[in-house]
Amino acid sequence: MSEKTAVVTDRAPRPPASFSQGVRKGNLLQVAGQVGFDPASGVVAGTGLVEQAEQTLRNVQAVLEEGGASWTDVVMMRVYLTDTSHFAELNRVYDEWFSRVAGPHPARTTVYVGLPAGLLVEIDALAVLD
Amino acid sequence: MSEKTAVVTDRAPRPPASFSQGVRKGNLLQVAGQVGFDPASGVVAGTGLVEQAEQTLRNVQAVLEEGGASWTDVVMMRVYLTDTSHFAELNRVYDEWFSRVAGPHPARTTVYVGLPAGLLVEIDALAVLD
Amino acid sequence: MSEKTAVVTDRAPRPPASFSQGVRKGNLLQVAGQVGFDPASGVVAGTGLVEQAEQTLRNVQAVLEEGGASWTDVVMMRVYLTDTSHFAELNRVYDEWFSRVAGPHPARTTVYVGLPAGLLVEIDALAVLD
Repeated sequence: MSEKTAVVTDRAPRPPASFSQGVRKGNLLQVAGQVGFDPASGVVAGTGLVEQAEQTLRNVQAVLEEGGASWTDVVMMRVYLTDTSHFAELNRVYDEWFSRVAGPHPARTTVYVGLPAGLLVEIDALAVLD
Repeated sequence: MSEKTAVVTDRAPRPPASFSQGVRKGNLLQVAGQVGFDPASGVVAGTGLVEQAEQTLRNVQAVLEEGGASWTDVVMMRVYLTDTSHFAELNRVYDEWFSRVAGPHPARTTVYVGLPAGLLVEIDALAVLD
Repeated sequence: MSEKTAVVTDRAPRPPASFSQGVRKGNLLQVAGQVGFDPASGVVAGTGLVEQAEQTLRNVQAVLEEGGASWTDVVMMRVYLTDTSHFAELNRVYDEWFSRVAGPHPARTTVYVGLPAGLLVEIDALAVLD
């Protein structure tokens, strides 16, 4: 019942080290921190916050779906930005994204950190399965 | 049994984007990142770490209580500060706060990040309900 | 069944404030953020990323074991570094560490933050017990 399963999908970037894109155990699905790499091309989706945030959310979604979950199951989003001036733009992408998701919005924490050169946003998600 | 519920309370600041102050699903209650805004006035509780940390903890508590939980249920606190020189002061507020909470203390991670101008501390919490 | 229990062990550093090294409630075990202090000597394991990362992982493991868990139960690792130039080195330590752990790798998020002077890495972990 609480066997641990790795989520593996070609629709999200391949991890650069020994970690899983997502893990299910018990009723939890934890999605690893996703960034704006397009898994099809292997390159960052764009140099701007909007393109990277949208790609990052698509990557999170791919892991959720592969793990048998959907946005509706997500209880927490952790959003890492690199610049406080990106907050409004991130919220526009975020609000539009969640306008298409049924049910209560996840909780969220947003903080400003360093990320590898060229990356402007990282997001991870915790889902509770039914 | 594991329906997802948003926690909504006037006793904590209104989220600036499409996320919930807290979310319950299954036996988890995740409190979104809280900062030092006083929900009554809508302004930051003070310019110093102590006032902001106390207000932040009050905001976390408001979400916990609205979600049917208490500090006793909290297993993890994530504390985000902006300056390593605030660590001792944060700990004084924190230790005094938890001296009034029965039972084992939650775990905690403290890191130093950027926050929007004027904010010195952000805290989120994960609770496991009985 | 979901009583909250603090994990206390001499094999990991003593917390500098009112928080627990780890907490169990329900089927969750949350390990607090660990850094590179050697609990035997009370000093940081070394000035380099490799020594600190290895000590940090040993500290996480001590808390997991004291809480009745193992690496196999871990679903999420949060890795905090201070410098993007440490990423490759961290991954070498990390990959070697997890090459000795059976079963699917945990998910992971890595971001770059500030830490107290002299500390290069902090790691926390969430485990789901059977």
